[in-house]
Amino acid sequence: MSTRKNLKVIIVGSGNVATHLARAIAQSKHELRQVLSRDLSRAKVLVNNTNVQAIQSVSHIDPTADVVILALKDDVLNTEYINQFPKKIILCHTSGSVSMDALAAFPNHGIFYPLQTFSKLKEVDFAEIPICLEASNTEVMQTLSLLASSLSPLVYEVNSKQRKALHLAAVFACNFTNLMYDISEDLCQKAGMDFEILRPLIRETAAKAQEHSPNEVQTGPASRNDKNIINRHINLLNQHVDYQEIYRVLTDEIIKRNEEL
Amino acid sequence: MSTRKNLKVIIVGSGNVATHLARAIAQSKHELRQVLSRDLSRAKVLVNNTNVQAIQSVSHIDPTADVVILALKDDVLNTEYINQFPKKIILCHTSGSVSMDALAAFPNHGIFYPLQTFSKLKEVDFAEIPICLEASNTEVMQTLSLLASSLSPLVYEVNSKQRKALHLAAVFACNFTNLMYDISEDLCQKAGMDFEILRPLIRETAAKAQEHSPNEVQTGPASRNDKNIINRHINLLNQHVDYQEIYRVLTDEIIKRNEEL
Repeated sequence: MSTRKNLKVIIVGSGNVATHLARAIAQSKHELRQVLSRDLSRAKVLVNNTNVQAIQSVSHIDPTADVVILALKDDVLNTEYINQFPKKIILCHTSGSVSMDALAAFPNHGIFYPLQTFSKLKEVDFAEIPICLEASNTEVMQTLSLLASSLSPLVYEVNSKQRKALHLAAVFACNFTNLMYDISEDLCQKAGMDFEILRPLIRETAAKAQEHSPNEVQTGPASRNDKNIINRHINLLNQHVDYQEIYRVLTDEIIKRNEEL
Repeated sequence: MSTRKNLKVIIVGSGNVATHLARAIAQSKHELRQVLSRDLSRAKVLVNNTNVQAIQSVSHIDPTADVVILALKDDVLNTEYINQFPKKIILCHTSGSVSMDALAAFPNHGIFYPLQTFSKLKEVDFAEIPICLEASNTEVMQTLSLLASSLSPLVYEVNSKQRKALHLAAVFACNFTNLMYDISEDLCQKAGMDFEILRPLIRETAAKAQEHSPNEVQTGPASRNDKNIINRHINLLNQHVDYQEIYRVLTDEIIKRNEEL
């Protein structure tokens, strides 16, 4: 295990997580040594205008590197591809849903899971991203902590079971939330209005959840169990059976939660 | 119709909307003249430490006031109570779901609908609140615009049909979104983690929707139609049949939207 403060890091992959992570590490005090992608042109795009090396084959990885981060799709993590990596290096993956055991063939392995929604369209500030770590031993945890804490103040130790729960929770907090935004935009536009009018409400709803438990600050017709408005809304959705079902299911859930309080 | 720049305003009600609106008008260049509530003690709390008059009866309202804002529950707006107000004053209500026609007995009437989620627990910045106006005639619209634009730069003319659609869209953008947050907190806590870990993701998801159409920036297993993860998530929710149903319905909707693109 290296005791140098500056780690040499290799990123494997060229998708959204690899891209954002590579940028953040390149700007940190640590060294982004290489980016490996089976599609070399993508690795080259990723390291564009830096002295980071783009490589295509595992056989070219720098054996003096401290950490290899596999920012790959879940199904690739479970293939033979992984077993080509040198056994002594610290190997970690970034997936929210794959067990640490997937890397058990390596004596030094771990998880480096940034809990955020990455898309090509938007820059992210890594200082705002919780990084969830898990490690096969204390030394690996120290190395991953050193790397993570140079990128973000939000570093958490999270075991594989917790990480899976977190990944599931994130689907609600992010993907399903974004679907709610999406439906609201559609309803807005169908009535001839711009989505702009709803954006302050979206900001405020998220801002409330920063300071409060969402349960404490729920508002709206379901929260008041206002059957008149609920029924009028369901009627308004007559032309959108999908939205009608979603409205019913989520309204029932809010009413049920209130009854349980 | 008054041509003075500073309007005299009366607020009727003492709930969340009345409270936040009263504060904002008291701090504007216009005059909050009176707060009327059938529960006088609540009106007094609301005008606390100001020279605004708290009154309990419609018979005490200042007949020289320019605008009366009814910040009342929907069911109160449809009662005889409303007909006690002087006929010549501009009377408007703040409801997202009640037609302007509810005030048709008054020659000068309109809507003053602030599109935001108000709760006692959190201060709001009115400059961040879209105010949706509708009016029975041009002069009423001018007066309401004068008042609204002194509180917020976000003033929209929205007809009753659009306002109802907006109110429905807001249930998705705010109340259902908040339910997603609530479920994510519950899942987090059940796995022994603090909700704090999810808050940056909530911030970023809302931030993305400020700059992009939510549809363009959707991420996650449903968006990739990743059946492996979707099935694992549904299994993880075995102990929460409600969440399982919500997960299925919302995942199906995301998959369907992607297929339609």
